[in-house]
Amino acid sequence: MKVNGTPMRTIWPQDADARGIGASVGIIDQTRLPHDFATLSLTSVDQAAHAIAAMLVRGAPLIGATAAYGVALAMKFDASDAGLARVTTQLAATRPTAINLKWALDRVTAALAPLAENARAQAAWAEAAAICDEDVEINAAIGRHALPLIEAIAAQKSGPVNILTHCNAGWLATVDRGTATSPIYFAHDAGISIHVWVDETRPRNQGAALTAWELNRHGVPHSVISDNSGGHLMQRGEVDLIFVGTDRTTANGDVCNKIGTYLKALAAKDNGVPFFVCLPSPTIDFALASGADIPIEERSADEITHVHGRDPDGRITTVQITPDGSPARNHAFDVTPARLVTGLVTERGIIEPTRESLARAFPERSGA
Amino acid sequence: MKVNGTPMRTIWPQDADARGIGASVGIIDQTRLPHDFATLSLTSVDQAAHAIAAMLVRGAPLIGATAAYGVALAMKFDASDAGLARVTTQLAATRPTAINLKWALDRVTAALAPLAENARAQAAWAEAAAICDEDVEINAAIGRHALPLIEAIAAQKSGPVNILTHCNAGWLATVDRGTATSPIYFAHDAGISIHVWVDETRPRNQGAALTAWELNRHGVPHSVISDNSGGHLMQRGEVDLIFVGTDRTTANGDVCNKIGTYLKALAAKDNGVPFFVCLPSPTIDFALASGADIPIEERSADEITHVHGRDPDGRITTVQITPDGSPARNHAFDVTPARLVTGLVTERGIIEPTRESLARAFPERSGA
Repeated sequence: MKVNGTPMRTIWPQDADARGIGASVGIIDQTRLPHDFATLSLTSVDQAAHAIAAMLVRGAPLIGATAAYGVALAMKFDASDAGLARVTTQLAATRPTAINLKWALDRVTAALAPLAENARAQAAWAEAAAICDEDVEINAAIGRHALPLIEAIAAQKSGPVNILTHCNAGWLATVDRGTATSPIYFAHDAGISIHVWVDETRPRNQGAALTAWELNRHGVPHSVISDNSGGHLMQRGEVDLIFVGTDRTTANGDVCNKIGTYLKALAAKDNGVPFFVCLPSPTIDFALASGADIPIEERSADEITHVHGRDPDGRITTVQITPDGSPARNHAFDVTPARLVTGLVTERGIIEPTRESLARAFPERSGA
Repeated sequence: MKVNGTPMRTIWPQDADARGIGASVGIIDQTRLPHDFATLSLTSVDQAAHAIAAMLVRGAPLIGATAAYGVALAMKFDASDAGLARVTTQLAATRPTAINLKWALDRVTAALAPLAENARAQAAWAEAAAICDEDVEINAAIGRHALPLIEAIAAQKSGPVNILTHCNAGWLATVDRGTATSPIYFAHDAGISIHVWVDETRPRNQGAALTAWELNRHGVPHSVISDNSGGHLMQRGEVDLIFVGTDRTTANGDVCNKIGTYLKALAAKDNGVPFFVCLPSPTIDFALASGADIPIEERSADEITHVHGRDPDGRITTVQITPDGSPARNHAFDVTPARLVTGLVTERGIIEPTRESLARAFPERSGA
């Protein structure tokens, strides 16, 4: 998407030679957003591993892409079987629970292993680029499938179409376009008048920090709101449509996503607001029968007791908001039951959130 | 309630003479909570007015009590009709929308106006004390009426009774006990094992800052959580009961309260968790037919874009969490429809949230 008018991805090869082998990989240092926009060049697998572990890059698809480029950076120096094994092990350890990380490393390994050592660097750069291009294409397909939902509302009202989103399922979490934001960018770029309600998304504030930054830089009208506000806005008719992402969706259409998603889905149901989940199909876990089977990660209490931001002197710092001695609990995700979901927007179209519809849409994965 | 073992109210007369005329009024400087506990002595009406306007004291009942003591402080110096009119005008202007402020000033004026000037100071101190004592008694009655709800759950389970609350309807907002916290303190003091889920309550964080501080100092087990968490906890059976306060409840039982209350009520309904609203009856507005008639205050966007807290150097400061240029909207309250409320806990008992039941319980106010 655009940053101050310039189209960008979240990761890109730099200074490629005639065979497509890059000298480095460019990324955005997301730890400095939204207050600073800085890009960095990764020149080694160590730097790529650090970028993932220290969350300079985050979001499942982008983590996978960065890992693939990490392998590519290493293959210039040591393309032996041992070297390949060593770097994939190193990269896999950076975020052990990220499913896309393992998927991307397995895919690159499968592509390189059969090749002669002197062909591996070129193949690794090509595979990493393919992973990125496919992510962009999946997200574009999600956006194209959801665009008519926005167009239909725009045709029926005079003001902007008000879309609410939670957390950051934006282009910063992917290679480009994002998932929940993909239809938003398509609609905006098509000249449809839209306005996005951005949940600040405590803790970690990915909405206030990242989604707002994205929309701001691309020029999409938006307002940051507290996570508490969405229900009231829906009661007053100020939300036309909701798009959220998902970390994992089960075979029956239950949606695991950032904590608080369930509350918005309840309010959507209570007020007749369509609630759509945008997801690349690899996010569907056909091995899990329902959301009750998903273990919910509990993260550090520090994310509740402390808030990051920029102080009046311009320094990025952290403030404690709770009294000393008050404990906190930090459940990171919740599960929205399929009964509250209007539709699942995938690269194959909008699917009803039922076991049967999902199996029909993805027969090769569901065993149907 | 207790602060580190010592029983306190939020406001108290100091150094009273034989006629009950105090030299000053003690308050807690709530702007320094939860990081600093400091008390202050107010010795003049100007200081009382400043304490209200600058939110050193906040919460409708406490604002009313502070205003009454502000009049009392002034009567020592000028108890003429003109003096009385001047100070009530001054105090009324400090928080123009606070309904208890006007109520308390009208009440003190009505008590003093018929008296000779030299009797007014003594009467003013007595009236302020009566206002405080009545607030404490109303809140105690609320707690006593709700206590059996907690006892019934405690009798049926082995672990602690898990109670969720939103915002600060605690003793810091009143003279003592609070409204939503009153049953919590009664249960804890009666030796019932309880644990309170404290919504941090963005924006302004009254839960993380004030409710957590209260519970911490009184020794009540609690955990601060993000506002997004309550639905998930209810889905997993980790909330037994919800108590919230209200800023205004309409004749049909619709409940206006801090933004986000409605989302918790929806989750409570979806998961069969009892949802009680604790309110002194003056909070019931029989002139409003339903919640749709309540204008919702929209406050400064700064409360969304910035968060207050204590930085690593121990300074109380503010950090900006949004990108420069991203607008924010700050709806301060929402309305929970009566259909989602299990019961209204008042000083006259627990009332079904219907027009008929409210009218029956308060015939002198409802015109029934």
